Amino acid sequence: MNFGRAPCIISRTFRLLGNAQLVSGSTWGRFPSTSVIMARRTGKIRGYSDFCRERNRLRVLLDMDMVLADFEEHFLTKYRETYPDAPYVKAEDRDGFWLRDQYEKISPNLKDKVQSIYEAEFFFRDLPEIPGAIEAAQEINKMEDVDVFICTSPLVQYKYCVKEKFEWVEQHLGMEWVEKLIITRDKTMVQGHVLIDDKPKIKGKVICCLSIPSWKHVVFTACHNRRTNIHGRRRLDNWTDGSWRNLLEDIRKHI
Amino acid sequence: MNFGRAPCIISRTFRLLGNAQLVSGSTWGRFPSTSVIMARRTGKIRGYSDFCRERNRLRVLLDMDMVLADFEEHFLTKYRETYPDAPYVKAEDRDGFWLRDQYEKISPNLKDKVQSIYEAEFFFRDLPEIPGAIEAAQEINKMEDVDVFICTSPLVQYKYCVKEKFEWVEQHLGMEWVEKLIITRDKTMVQGHVLIDDKPKIKGKVICCLSIPSWKHVVFTACHNRRTNIHGRRRLDNWTDGSWRNLLEDIRKHI
Repeated sequence: MNFGRAPCIISRTFRLLGNAQLVSGSTWGRFPSTSVIMARRTGKIRGYSDFCRERNRLRVLLDMDMVLADFEEHFLTKYRETYPDAPYVKAEDRDGFWLRDQYEKISPNLKDKVQSIYEAEFFFRDLPEIPGAIEAAQEINKMEDVDVFICTSPLVQYKYCVKEKFEWVEQHLGMEWVEKLIITRDKTMVQGHVLIDDKPKIKGKVICCLSIPSWKHVVFTACHNRRTNIHGRRRLDNWTDGSWRNLLEDIRKHI
Repeated sequence: MNFGRAPCIISRTFRLLGNAQLVSGSTWGRFPSTSVIMARRTGKIRGYSDFCRERNRLRVLLDMDMVLADFEEHFLTKYRETYPDAPYVKAEDRDGFWLRDQYEKISPNLKDKVQSIYEAEFFFRDLPEIPGAIEAAQEINKMEDVDVFICTSPLVQYKYCVKEKFEWVEQHLGMEWVEKLIITRDKTMVQGHVLIDDKPKIKGKVICCLSIPSWKHVVFTACHNRRTNIHGRRRLDNWTDGSWRNLLEDIRKHI
């Protein structure tokens, strides 16, 4: 029997259990609890001495649009260039996650105009960076015992969006980061300790046991969510004032 | 406080704990244990009566290449068309997951030829179906209390591969399935009960607590893994003899 990964299992088990007594049953059905208990008693499992260090290894998931890449600014620029006579919403007046919904309230025919902008070729490739985001991401990537991934939802109209998200990551962060990119319409399926995302409410496609996210959601402040009630969740307002470092350290303490 | 998802949390909590007594701490840090215990005592949480049914909701992850789409057959056809004079490996002689490694053993200069085939435009778009795969996937999707997703790794050379994976899914399974597509280089990060995948050994990018997969890996038999030692894992040999139905029912019993 291969015990190579036991410290991780033990780490997660005891993190989940708190002060609970493990009487029977198995952890994820992969490892009999007796083995875990024996491992804990004897410390004979390979790598067991790493247990404490493993406990605090932090996995950070970063959303892409409005966390790393400035979707809203680029949208407004392109929209005003393409439809100079159409009404528009200034950044300070944005309210609500879905751009097209706010524009539709002004006039129903604006919805198609809005979509035509972000569904166009090169829209995602040419997104500017959120100030400080790339430097912060690179710093997180170099932090000890921290693993960082990018977790992003594609448009349903995936024609340009998906490939261009890869291109953006390669161009702004480097090829190493392409391996860290996760494209999913359901972020609750991805395991992590923290997801930094501007969308105020993130739901799974299917509500079931596994759709409870493993991560804590930190809301990255964007023009569209400044006024949104985020129901007690924590915010990160920017990447430039350095507060993200304390945020990650706080989250690490509670994993 | 919104208790809408409590049954799921409770379900997972008690599945993890077995007969353990929850003394303190929280479940995933989202829900105080006192609330969980009170919920269990009073049964007053909305939807709590669904607890037992939720326990057995099954999440199935399907790999794409060599599980749904026949990468190997298409590769051999295109390779022989493109390089009619170059040596090749018949399907019955394939051994080992990485095509390029087996070809490189024949001659080092074949590696580039091999890569040129699957990195070409339209290679992924034009993959034929694995016999019975689409019918099985559609049937799984209609099964009660089962959620199915496609979990696939892109090539590092993502230029055509990523977009064409989306196109393939839309064409062969329909637009609804585009929403079920998860693109990741690290499948251990995706939550599920079972991953059906032809790759005999699936590892995470980083070995840490969260890289222990939540899923059981069922090895889908392909020409390259028939002789591979799969270390006691279960196999699924095809989609045509109906054995996948028993397999999923067995897995459901153990979640």
